[in-house]
Amino acid sequence: MNNTYRFVDGGITAPKGFTAGAKACDVKGNKSGKLDMAILFSEVDAVAAGVFTTNKFAAPPVLYCREVLKNGKIRAVVVNSGNANAATGKKGLEDARALADCTAKELNLKSEEVFVCSTGVIGVHLPLERMLEGIKAIAPTLSKDNGHIAEQAIMTTDTVPKEISFELELSGGTVTIGAMAKGSGMIHPNMATMLGYLTTDAVIAQADLQDMLTRAVDKSYNMLTVDGDTSTNDSFVVMANGKSGVEVKSEDDKKKFYEAIEYVNMEMAKKIAADGEGASHLVVVEAQNLPTEHDARLVARAVAGSNLFKCAIFGKDANWGRVISAAGYSGAEFATDKIDVKLGSVAGEIQVMQAGAGLSFDEDKAAKVLNEKDITVYLDFHDGNNNATAFGCDLTYDYVKINGDYRS
Amino acid sequence: MNNTYRFVDGGITAPKGFTAGAKACDVKGNKSGKLDMAILFSEVDAVAAGVFTTNKFAAPPVLYCREVLKNGKIRAVVVNSGNANAATGKKGLEDARALADCTAKELNLKSEEVFVCSTGVIGVHLPLERMLEGIKAIAPTLSKDNGHIAEQAIMTTDTVPKEISFELELSGGTVTIGAMAKGSGMIHPNMATMLGYLTTDAVIAQADLQDMLTRAVDKSYNMLTVDGDTSTNDSFVVMANGKSGVEVKSEDDKKKFYEAIEYVNMEMAKKIAADGEGASHLVVVEAQNLPTEHDARLVARAVAGSNLFKCAIFGKDANWGRVISAAGYSGAEFATDKIDVKLGSVAGEIQVMQAGAGLSFDEDKAAKVLNEKDITVYLDFHDGNNNATAFGCDLTYDYVKINGDYRS
Repeated sequence: MNNTYRFVDGGITAPKGFTAGAKACDVKGNKSGKLDMAILFSEVDAVAAGVFTTNKFAAPPVLYCREVLKNGKIRAVVVNSGNANAATGKKGLEDARALADCTAKELNLKSEEVFVCSTGVIGVHLPLERMLEGIKAIAPTLSKDNGHIAEQAIMTTDTVPKEISFELELSGGTVTIGAMAKGSGMIHPNMATMLGYLTTDAVIAQADLQDMLTRAVDKSYNMLTVDGDTSTNDSFVVMANGKSGVEVKSEDDKKKFYEAIEYVNMEMAKKIAADGEGASHLVVVEAQNLPTEHDARLVARAVAGSNLFKCAIFGKDANWGRVISAAGYSGAEFATDKIDVKLGSVAGEIQVMQAGAGLSFDEDKAAKVLNEKDITVYLDFHDGNNNATAFGCDLTYDYVKINGDYRS
Repeated sequence: MNNTYRFVDGGITAPKGFTAGAKACDVKGNKSGKLDMAILFSEVDAVAAGVFTTNKFAAPPVLYCREVLKNGKIRAVVVNSGNANAATGKKGLEDARALADCTAKELNLKSEEVFVCSTGVIGVHLPLERMLEGIKAIAPTLSKDNGHIAEQAIMTTDTVPKEISFELELSGGTVTIGAMAKGSGMIHPNMATMLGYLTTDAVIAQADLQDMLTRAVDKSYNMLTVDGDTSTNDSFVVMANGKSGVEVKSEDDKKKFYEAIEYVNMEMAKKIAADGEGASHLVVVEAQNLPTEHDARLVARAVAGSNLFKCAIFGKDANWGRVISAAGYSGAEFATDKIDVKLGSVAGEIQVMQAGAGLSFDEDKAAKVLNEKDITVYLDFHDGNNNATAFGCDLTYDYVKINGDYRS
């Protein structure tokens, strides 16, 4: 699919009419000097779509964004890392509004044209004064060149930035898509990106945009698990400002545009899984030929989420028993006596199970396959024709280390 | 509740009419000399009840036991560690039958009077010859004194034996209850014991016994999570041989007897959680005052199962944000603005959240509370009057180590 797109530099600000800025505002209060606040700005009204956490304790910024999204249009996003503004009660909601108000004032917008997103530690009030100062400092610096530092400002335990930008040919001309995301812990369906943003200069109806986003999120972030924990702050926001003048209207263009959004989200999901906290392997699980898509999704996610299998991948151990055990408790319905299981990587493939029973296999070859960074597990149930893909990572000492001491 | 019972020695063979034997039979094929096969025997017919894994890939011994249980009576159990005889196809079922046949022959029983249980690595055929020799060697050694070595024979990655035995006064006289269990990894609802056995010399109807077992398992093993993985071999078996001559028939006696079974299972669940693979803390989660018992169970299990919270406990970090995040994605319904959260241990209690918002608290006191081995988390939702308790443990380097290299 990559051949379809012409990759360009710029990340989230690559599409026409988008700028960004970022500063180190000491949100965490540890004077680390890390970039931790960013503003993403559209020069004109942008059609907006969003998908948010299903956690009952959705954080105040999420509650705020859900409200704003009802208008269907936004102009800016203000986002911080270092503090999630979650479980902060009424004051948390007031703080989120204060960030929106300040951003609106500095950029001559209405407050209801500004999204607010936060990620970081839960249960601590925002250092509002420092953050309002930060907004005032960032607002005059907005520029096309700041896509990459905006991404850096939203990272927490991420070890690599997650950005993409490319051009797409539609019937009416060229549109550009940019995206950035952060997330490496507390990542689990539904949904699983912590924070993600996609910008485009295409002209598209809000209903189409929301529908495409929801479908693409279902295939990507909702099939992604790092640790089984669904965050209070997950938000994925799309802004389409129409600055290219190119419409997404014909069925063919809609199909192409949807595929591009799905491509972005699948790539981001893979990047997030590969950068899972402490992860040394990306694990892609392909559940094939099941009675229903629901069954296929249950299986793929259960295998990708199995702590025991994740430990085995860390140990480079072809412990396929844990693969089928996870499939067995996933809740999916399938015949148990036809399943084939293969493990694969760039070093080759090795079949470990045939028709529901284990095969003896070449342990040396298995070790070579599992020595690669990106591992794929194929489960073919031969019991239908529905498939699903899930993304995960291994469970390592470093995951425990990172999360045994996150607050301090 | 402990004051109700008169503890006695003997474990699983403490009740009248039960004997056991165990040998090192090299089931794993690594000549470790570990005790790995045991036989549990009742001198007379025992009314039997059982609860088994819900995993779709239920292992051949589980399939076999489910069949045998339909008769409602058994005389013996043959059990091995070191190999789960799971994902072993038709040959696996033939092997399970062969173990039952051999045990029956050596003990002058019918094959359908023998349960077969296996635990250990998945997907490897049993070393049948060595195991049949083992049965022949164990059969002549059955004795009242062998309860403890039977427990040792069923342990895998367990670091401590899990046994209990006590006398209970009923209206007609004294009955004795004994139990043993193993399990420390691949432990998750439903159900979560790997292997457990309870014996009693009480006289009780099969339907009553099965009903009591199912209810007690729901409160104990089904509220226990070590790593979120549900095994292919979980089995809990109860045998009541009536040798005391004391009946469990009046409502009062039934209530007492049920409470005793629940007590045994709660104790075993706690022991299994505390001995979770690599665990350094037992974590008990009390979800209080929710709209329904279902909601309370969802919350308690989600918190006990949260990888992030488990890492925080390992790090002795009072990261209550992860507690309420887990409650929030549990699927339970409740008001989010009334919840109080406390952390407790023998060192005291500390409140960290009140009415849905975080409290500033004494970090030194929190560190003292979390420095203890047994930690309790209290979530009071003030939104109903239904409670549930779940049992878990922390997630540690050693869990990853043990499971990164289990097969070898």
